[in-house]
Amino acid sequence: MTMFTAEILCVGNELLSGITVNTNAYWLSNKITESGGFVKRITVVGDNVDEIASAVKESIARRPDWLILSGGLGPTYDDKTLQGIAVGLNLDLALDKMAVEMLRRSYARRSITYELNEVRLKMAKIPRGSIPIQNPVGTAPSVIVEATPEKTRIICLPGVPKEMEAIFLESILPEIKNTVGDFYLKEGSFEVIGISEAMLAPMLSQLVESNPTDYSYIKTHPQEYSRDNKPRLRIQIVAKGKDKNEVEIRHNNISKMLIEEIGRLGGKIN
Amino acid sequence: MTMFTAEILCVGNELLSGITVNTNAYWLSNKITESGGFVKRITVVGDNVDEIASAVKESIARRPDWLILSGGLGPTYDDKTLQGIAVGLNLDLALDKMAVEMLRRSYARRSITYELNEVRLKMAKIPRGSIPIQNPVGTAPSVIVEATPEKTRIICLPGVPKEMEAIFLESILPEIKNTVGDFYLKEGSFEVIGISEAMLAPMLSQLVESNPTDYSYIKTHPQEYSRDNKPRLRIQIVAKGKDKNEVEIRHNNISKMLIEEIGRLGGKIN
Repeated sequence: MTMFTAEILCVGNELLSGITVNTNAYWLSNKITESGGFVKRITVVGDNVDEIASAVKESIARRPDWLILSGGLGPTYDDKTLQGIAVGLNLDLALDKMAVEMLRRSYARRSITYELNEVRLKMAKIPRGSIPIQNPVGTAPSVIVEATPEKTRIICLPGVPKEMEAIFLESILPEIKNTVGDFYLKEGSFEVIGISEAMLAPMLSQLVESNPTDYSYIKTHPQEYSRDNKPRLRIQIVAKGKDKNEVEIRHNNISKMLIEEIGRLGGKIN
Repeated sequence: MTMFTAEILCVGNELLSGITVNTNAYWLSNKITESGGFVKRITVVGDNVDEIASAVKESIARRPDWLILSGGLGPTYDDKTLQGIAVGLNLDLALDKMAVEMLRRSYARRSITYELNEVRLKMAKIPRGSIPIQNPVGTAPSVIVEATPEKTRIICLPGVPKEMEAIFLESILPEIKNTVGDFYLKEGSFEVIGISEAMLAPMLSQLVESNPTDYSYIKTHPQEYSRDNKPRLRIQIVAKGKDKNEVEIRHNNISKMLIEEIGRLGGKIN
């Protein structure tokens, strides 16, 4: 099974000041994981050229297949993602004819005749050698940068969720599916009363050791104690792999062994 | 006004696989911002010693006042935060008598007599020279590491939201308030129809240039177009500072100038 790895870099002061919950990173990592890819790191930086530049350089040094950025592509003073990438990778920003055409198309789609002034053309100034992608929902084109010194490809998605989602689904998801090939994921969780994480820890270690690390995932989430002071856990089991049947069997085996151990320890499944 | 800067490092595979929304980072950055501190970066890594170690080293090289970690303090196989810090900072993990006492107290609080076996004592093995903090809600102690080569202090909070919140409010928030001193924040937002980001961009740049950067914040959030194809924006204004009166005046002035400009451009406030 070919691995597909990604890092996510979200740009926006509102994500650092507790104004906006980072649902973009959640949505992206969900889609990537359920298609068989692996998100290795999520980073959030503010609307600051140097911060974006450093984060991009650090990320591509770790060599993920893709670095997916979100936010900072618009026309306002605080939209600095492309500038950050240009500084980080030592590329010029240049007005791109195709990107200008995409802007025109975006405005035409809404039957709006805006003057393509300096402010609007900012959205078409992209790192030299990069590829603009039509934004099917909003205005600012998305941008793919392939000219990194490492193997990583960079895609800049808009921060507006609907725009980000549309371009991701059109331009990145097919590539992940293509790379990973057949993929099946089974997830399930259940709640247990009377069992603490510590009680279950030895069996968890055993299960994790005897199953393929990257394609099995067991996590215990401690909940608040019950009214009669009993520990409560939510236990989550994820199995994934190329073969549906094999994944089902692995998921069922892990569940079965956990449920037996919980019974042995005197726990109850809720 | 003394600056207080922080980075947040969240540890957990579930945050990278789109299983859990990172509300911990949101909650922490909200609390830090509203007390006058600045969150400079948020990083999410998986339950992996090397990933945690690198992220910690990279963060303290940027010298925030605090590096706040969340997650990975429990007794199970995938709780690796303290080990990651030990590797990153080249410190030993050692069983800490105070931390053991805290574990005992946590169990006693629930009138539970658990054997302090190897699995449970893992939660009391902390980087040598660090300070354990009683977990007032759950079991695993929190840990403060001051022995970094840089000025940064590190605190490891549990990943369970109620536990994380309780320890943050008790142990970090008073320190932020103490450092920053008097602080007042005013936030407001309104929706506008008929105005695009590009139309408002010149006035935004002007407003941002004429107000103190770190203590004023104006952000336009594009919304879906209206049914009659008009652009919609949510405009958010934040003013902050030491003096309530001065902050109110700044917030009102920014709002007033924006509203005038919106009127001039033919936009309507919703």
